[in-house]
Amino acid sequence: MWIYGRRAVEAVLSNPRRKILRFLLSEGTCLDIPSSIKYEVVGKEAFAELFGRHAVHQGCAVLVNNLPDWDLDSFLRKSDDDRPFVILDQVQDVQNIGSIIRASAVFDIQAIIMTKKNSPSLTAALAKAASGALEFVPIIRVGNLVQAINTLQKQGFWIVGLDERGTQSLHELPLKSGKFACIIGSEGKGMRRLTREHCDFLARIPCNEKFSTLNAAQAATLALYEIFKQRVAL
Amino acid sequence: MWIYGRRAVEAVLSNPRRKILRFLLSEGTCLDIPSSIKYEVVGKEAFAELFGRHAVHQGCAVLVNNLPDWDLDSFLRKSDDDRPFVILDQVQDVQNIGSIIRASAVFDIQAIIMTKKNSPSLTAALAKAASGALEFVPIIRVGNLVQAINTLQKQGFWIVGLDERGTQSLHELPLKSGKFACIIGSEGKGMRRLTREHCDFLARIPCNEKFSTLNAAQAATLALYEIFKQRVAL
Repeated sequence: MWIYGRRAVEAVLSNPRRKILRFLLSEGTCLDIPSSIKYEVVGKEAFAELFGRHAVHQGCAVLVNNLPDWDLDSFLRKSDDDRPFVILDQVQDVQNIGSIIRASAVFDIQAIIMTKKNSPSLTAALAKAASGALEFVPIIRVGNLVQAINTLQKQGFWIVGLDERGTQSLHELPLKSGKFACIIGSEGKGMRRLTREHCDFLARIPCNEKFSTLNAAQAATLALYEIFKQRVAL
Repeated sequence: MWIYGRRAVEAVLSNPRRKILRFLLSEGTCLDIPSSIKYEVVGKEAFAELFGRHAVHQGCAVLVNNLPDWDLDSFLRKSDDDRPFVILDQVQDVQNIGSIIRASAVFDIQAIIMTKKNSPSLTAALAKAASGALEFVPIIRVGNLVQAINTLQKQGFWIVGLDERGTQSLHELPLKSGKFACIIGSEGKGMRRLTREHCDFLARIPCNEKFSTLNAAQAATLALYEIFKQRVAL
């Protein structure tokens, strides 16, 4: 896959699991590149041809190997870790998912789980939106979300679904200790019914009654902040 | 100005201070429109000509009067209100500002203050990014941000600047009572030096040391949530 944009490319350079197959720079782009890595200086047209005219590539792009695809069972076998998971239920907007990956890196999430169907693939645009965070947060794609929820519950994770109609405010949940996975639903519709029914808690974000809709990325950022703060910062 | 996108147009319809000068719908768009309002059904080409091919107009657009421009002094004279202000210091990304307006509506912010220079104007793209919230949050444009900060301080507002190097965590500040204005700096550089020097508090958001950069909209959303939660929800 191609990855472009300054921060995303810098994060790739710092990730030993990435192999760099090609490295394009436009003239005048300053970037701290280890001397062992070869790059080609190319014109703006080359970027436009590869990524379209609207991509904010900031004059740098790398062609890299894909990171290994995890399945949940083998991930959990290797992991000995109490950090939270994020579960995305049909979130499809690339900018939103990028922001959620970024918040997941900032608030020390173990991995993000999304469905194989109805989730965008890991494109250059997604990597750019995640601003380098894709290098820090494993993505696990599952065939069946309810099955993944059951698996996590068996491993002792509490499942918290964000829901405007939730009965408890997020910050009132006992998040300080224990293991958690937090489900974010799609912007328009929230979680699907079956997903909602498998949650241990349905939590809402306290807000103004008159205008109450955050986008999926904002809601996720708040939830991960609240969990992090209660677990680590206090 | 033109405003497009379903939520943004619906919010305009609910705002008595907006006059609708033209109303375009594409065929098949379902929208709840009061019978007193006239609309034209037009083809997709008309939307593309007005807004470009990439605008997510969702088949509806209205041409409306601009909302009145506030200046800070007259706003404060009319306001008898302890709710927080948001101050943007050189935030320029339209998507980020849209998200900040949205979070400001959700967390009951009194108004957003930004500079006349180096802030984007209120375009259709900004209104779409704010997803209707532009109808709920007054925007105040000032010539000099430091002067605006001084004015607010004289009125009893505490100025909290978000800063990665802040000495206190945001949630440790005494936000429960008192009047606050929260400053968000630009994504790349944060607040300008002079702005930072005029803050009463410099607060950071607690996070992972390894990857610590949220975008301006995410940082703002968290700060407004924390202030709202402490003032209202607890």
